[in-house]
Amino acid sequence: MKSAELSFFEPKDSMVGEWCYALAEELWPLPRFLTGNAVRATLQRLKAELPPLNIHSINSEEKAFDWEVPSEWNIQEAYIQDEAGKNIIEFSKNNLHIVGYSEPIDIKLTLDELQKHLYSLPDQPDAIPYVTSYYKRRWGFCLSQNQRDSLSNGMYRVVINSELKPGVLNYGELLIPGEKEEEIFLSTYVCHPSMANNELSGPVVTAALSKWLLAQPTLKYSYRIVFIPETIGSLVYLSRNLDEMRKRVRAGFNISCVGDDRCYSYLPSRNGNTISDHVALHVLKHLSADFKRYTWLDRGSDERQYCAPGADLPIATIMRSKYGEYPEYHTSLDTLGGVVTSKGLAGGFGALKSAISILENDFTPLVTTIGEPQLGKRGLYPDISQKGSANHVRDMMNMISYCDGRRSLFQIAELLGLSFHTLLETAKPLLEEGLLIKQH
Amino acid sequence: MKSAELSFFEPKDSMVGEWCYALAEELWPLPRFLTGNAVRATLQRLKAELPPLNIHSINSEEKAFDWEVPSEWNIQEAYIQDEAGKNIIEFSKNNLHIVGYSEPIDIKLTLDELQKHLYSLPDQPDAIPYVTSYYKRRWGFCLSQNQRDSLSNGMYRVVINSELKPGVLNYGELLIPGEKEEEIFLSTYVCHPSMANNELSGPVVTAALSKWLLAQPTLKYSYRIVFIPETIGSLVYLSRNLDEMRKRVRAGFNISCVGDDRCYSYLPSRNGNTISDHVALHVLKHLSADFKRYTWLDRGSDERQYCAPGADLPIATIMRSKYGEYPEYHTSLDTLGGVVTSKGLAGGFGALKSAISILENDFTPLVTTIGEPQLGKRGLYPDISQKGSANHVRDMMNMISYCDGRRSLFQIAELLGLSFHTLLETAKPLLEEGLLIKQH
Amino acid sequence: MKSAELSFFEPKDSMVGEWCYALAEELWPLPRFLTGNAVRATLQRLKAELPPLNIHSINSEEKAFDWEVPSEWNIQEAYIQDEAGKNIIEFSKNNLHIVGYSEPIDIKLTLDELQKHLYSLPDQPDAIPYVTSYYKRRWGFCLSQNQRDSLSNGMYRVVINSELKPGVLNYGELLIPGEKEEEIFLSTYVCHPSMANNELSGPVVTAALSKWLLAQPTLKYSYRIVFIPETIGSLVYLSRNLDEMRKRVRAGFNISCVGDDRCYSYLPSRNGNTISDHVALHVLKHLSADFKRYTWLDRGSDERQYCAPGADLPIATIMRSKYGEYPEYHTSLDTLGGVVTSKGLAGGFGALKSAISILENDFTPLVTTIGEPQLGKRGLYPDISQKGSANHVRDMMNMISYCDGRRSLFQIAELLGLSFHTLLETAKPLLEEGLLIKQH
Repeated sequence: MKSAELSFFEPKDSMVGEWCYALAEELWPLPRFLTGNAVRATLQRLKAELPPLNIHSINSEEKAFDWEVPSEWNIQEAYIQDEAGKNIIEFSKNNLHIVGYSEPIDIKLTLDELQKHLYSLPDQPDAIPYVTSYYKRRWGFCLSQNQRDSLSNGMYRVVINSELKPGVLNYGELLIPGEKEEEIFLSTYVCHPSMANNELSGPVVTAALSKWLLAQPTLKYSYRIVFIPETIGSLVYLSRNLDEMRKRVRAGFNISCVGDDRCYSYLPSRNGNTISDHVALHVLKHLSADFKRYTWLDRGSDERQYCAPGADLPIATIMRSKYGEYPEYHTSLDTLGGVVTSKGLAGGFGALKSAISILENDFTPLVTTIGEPQLGKRGLYPDISQKGSANHVRDMMNMISYCDGRRSLFQIAELLGLSFHTLLETAKPLLEEGLLIKQH
Repeated sequence: MKSAELSFFEPKDSMVGEWCYALAEELWPLPRFLTGNAVRATLQRLKAELPPLNIHSINSEEKAFDWEVPSEWNIQEAYIQDEAGKNIIEFSKNNLHIVGYSEPIDIKLTLDELQKHLYSLPDQPDAIPYVTSYYKRRWGFCLSQNQRDSLSNGMYRVVINSELKPGVLNYGELLIPGEKEEEIFLSTYVCHPSMANNELSGPVVTAALSKWLLAQPTLKYSYRIVFIPETIGSLVYLSRNLDEMRKRVRAGFNISCVGDDRCYSYLPSRNGNTISDHVALHVLKHLSADFKRYTWLDRGSDERQYCAPGADLPIATIMRSKYGEYPEYHTSLDTLGGVVTSKGLAGGFGALKSAISILENDFTPLVTTIGEPQLGKRGLYPDISQKGSANHVRDMMNMISYCDGRRSLFQIAELLGLSFHTLLETAKPLLEEGLLIKQH
Repeated sequence: MKSAELSFFEPKDSMVGEWCYALAEELWPLPRFLTGNAVRATLQRLKAELPPLNIHSINSEEKAFDWEVPSEWNIQEAYIQDEAGKNIIEFSKNNLHIVGYSEPIDIKLTLDELQKHLYSLPDQPDAIPYVTSYYKRRWGFCLSQNQRDSLSNGMYRVVINSELKPGVLNYGELLIPGEKEEEIFLSTYVCHPSMANNELSGPVVTAALSKWLLAQPTLKYSYRIVFIPETIGSLVYLSRNLDEMRKRVRAGFNISCVGDDRCYSYLPSRNGNTISDHVALHVLKHLSADFKRYTWLDRGSDERQYCAPGADLPIATIMRSKYGEYPEYHTSLDTLGGVVTSKGLAGGFGALKSAISILENDFTPLVTTIGEPQLGKRGLYPDISQKGSANHVRDMMNMISYCDGRRSLFQIAELLGLSFHTLLETAKPLLEEGLLIKQH
């Protein structure tokens, strides 16, 4: 698929969904945690799609506000062997079996002792949970409750061949210049192992959006797009770029959980009243009457950092099924195919593209005459006055009536309950006739 | 009826309704369209009632913002004759038979050819529709669907003896000076042929309001009252008076559809939050709990021009049944007697008089003592304190508690959910006692 | 009971209720009206509990805005005797039998003539009503409808041994200095004879609040507390202190009807949007989901003066059952035990103490890091990330997310729907860690 195939006004284009899905399949096996080889491999694969992507390395122990970069963790193998020497759990079969950042070990212990290091979900007996311990040294394995219940007494050998030592934390950054220095900021995270909606959907949809933006002949805004590990990654990024971001970032979106096809969801910025919020709500309202509307108190991703006191960036979140709100969340059941679909990814892409397209295309229209313009002489109004005849031009007349140079086209769309893109089409012939001008 | 008979506090006075109805009967037969003899005759009849009315003439082709004044159109006769030489449709029998601004013709044609020039309403088979073609040359006849269905094949002779040529557009303007240079603006239109609610009710009720205002010994505000052809008339008027109006007009109403007795209706200014809007809503709320409340998107009369970007006048609309919302609208069924009644006209007059009366009588009261005044010593409060005894003076005490010099009496009435005129009566003895003063 | 027993965080402490109840029993028999010996005796009893209380005397005929201080009234005895010489009504048996400010008389008259001077309640035939005539000379007796119906024809002797002559009006004033010159103002009234909720509850609960405040080692605000006769007392107080109060009073409460245990009630200041209003609503919302919310139009106590135009003090009212809204109001049925209970008084005290405690303890928190603080390293956050694990620290994280130096802790509690005192506890470890600072 070439970038040029991603056009502005086909947000449900199934090809984009398929492209995202294929990329997610490639990235699926990599055991991504906060740091390490798998994050680097993921970023390299993204760079192959997005050549201008810069991959940054931040040394362990560097400060990021109240935090510091943790050591780099890598894992070669991990398994639990029963008395018969059979591997009953193998990291190589499923990334989620290992508790993230487990310390290395090679030990024999009883089932009772082993139990203290096992994690399962009684309510979802088939699911392997996703567990990490980034800031405290421990080791552990995750497994399904069913498998755990089947373990018999006896001795077990546990082998974890991992390494935690000073290294680097990596993230990718893509800057796409536009006509203005003002920026739209997009952020997604690359620190989750094999789970599909949360979180392979974010990186692949963000990659698709990046390709689409790179393919545009001109852009009004500049774009700052980051692929980071969650929390520590956004803190590191903010601690190095906040002054500039506070000056430049006009709007932005945190991109997470954009891959299933069950619903759309909105989570506001802390402020709740930024242009990002208004645009996100507009897109979702016109895309799906029953989208889910969360509050700031339901937050749980990097908006926690971007919108924190002192950062105060205008970052809203458009999602499909929100993290924490669907049953497969943070388990092995969050699969490509089972939860995430090509159609779901296309929908997530389309919603975000539509939001960006509003930001790119909005302007403040001013009608160039006082009183209604005479549309009849321009062929834009019926030339006979008859009961009911004016209905089909009412949207146009309503729009014109608000083109007073004090409201943007987006604000007029909101006033009229019409979608921005519908109104953009309505405005075109009037701009051509000179009846409307773009004030700014 | 003499003007002095129209007193301030009898808004339902049936005499005013009868006076309006009688005037409407006189004006009914005149074939009013945008321009021409019938408009002039209508204005002359109004001037007989309102001697200071100025009748203006604007030459064809003069500019009015994006528009220009059309040629003047007059019609002597128009009919369709069947093969037997019988006039099956005659303009002289009903004004609505002719498409307004039809070009002259004298032709014989087949029924099939004739059909292209006929207008009827399949859903209202008894009604003759009202059709105009002001800005494109054509000719046509309007007739009931029943009559149309009865036409037999054959040849028909069509005669239209009309004339469209440079002339003038006329409108009437009445300026009534008050103590202030600030103005209340009233506008109604005189361009509709024989239809009663839309629109003979507007001119006759506006004439009654004008007589009542002229009869007042003093007025706080000055009044600017226009009788114009719709759309082009308001554009012409605005284009010649806008600078002054923007400085002076404090409030105003577009007066249309004020003649039937089915309901009351409110249509806001574009701003929606002007004093005209608040006063209109107040009057209707206290007149009829179930008045209909429309939005700016439901507009359809000269508020489209007065409130347009660049004009931005504070013009709201008080109606009975709104144009476009009653079945007889823009057809021959909109009759005096059938739709418009003396009682309906009296109600339209009363609502507008009440609104104007609020504007004239509102003031900002300031209580002259700190703490509650001692009403007892003035005989305004019961002199014995007993369970429940204070209830009947509660409205007065509530009013006083808001007389802080920051709210007008009208705003206090709104706060208390009481009608302005009730509160005006309540305030009188307190003003006389000097407990309240008019701050401004 | 010693003041130190009244601690900050036990608002339902039954001991306070018992203390209030015992004091009310002592004050019950005193025949309080606007002026006179019983008011002085009441103030002396309060001064025994609150030694710094100043008892002021204002001469009759002194001005207070639109009012003047009435003459002092005292009564020795009053009774009605039947023909047999039997006292059928005796003031000494129930204060309410006499119409307040009755003029002296010793007369014989027929039942018919006597009836003109009797007051009873047909709908509450067992109740003796409470009636006063402060500003017009008359005499009268109050009795139950049942007793009135039982009166037989014949002659009656009426004796009222009262005295109305120039004297003084008394009130008590307590100033408790705090760190700031800004004041919290509390007002209650001491002019009602033997009725419990309205109004012995106000004075005794205000006395308990005063003792509690006097016992605090430090106070942020200064406190101005008055025990006054209603209406004329608040007008007198305002007329002598308004300039200072307008400069100093930050918040305040009128304390009335705080003794029964049926419900809680809120009545706003005239402004309705003061800190007193917000705090009162917060306390009641978290105390009782179904508290009753009245409007300014339901007012009826000294807030009428404190909030009047020109005074404009931020005085809200927290009550149990509001005056005028419970059946025993202003009758002999409003008794200690029957209406007012120890538990009811404790609840009134607790609500007001809680409101004052919010004013004393509120501050504007600022988080000292950008982005979320790392609570894990401080033992304030779970060190393992697992599905659902973060729920129990969510309130803390939500609070921190709003500690942006632009909102007070109270405003954050309102945003989060949590009680102020809960959030105050949540903030403590964060203040100790230096993660939050008090900005002001």
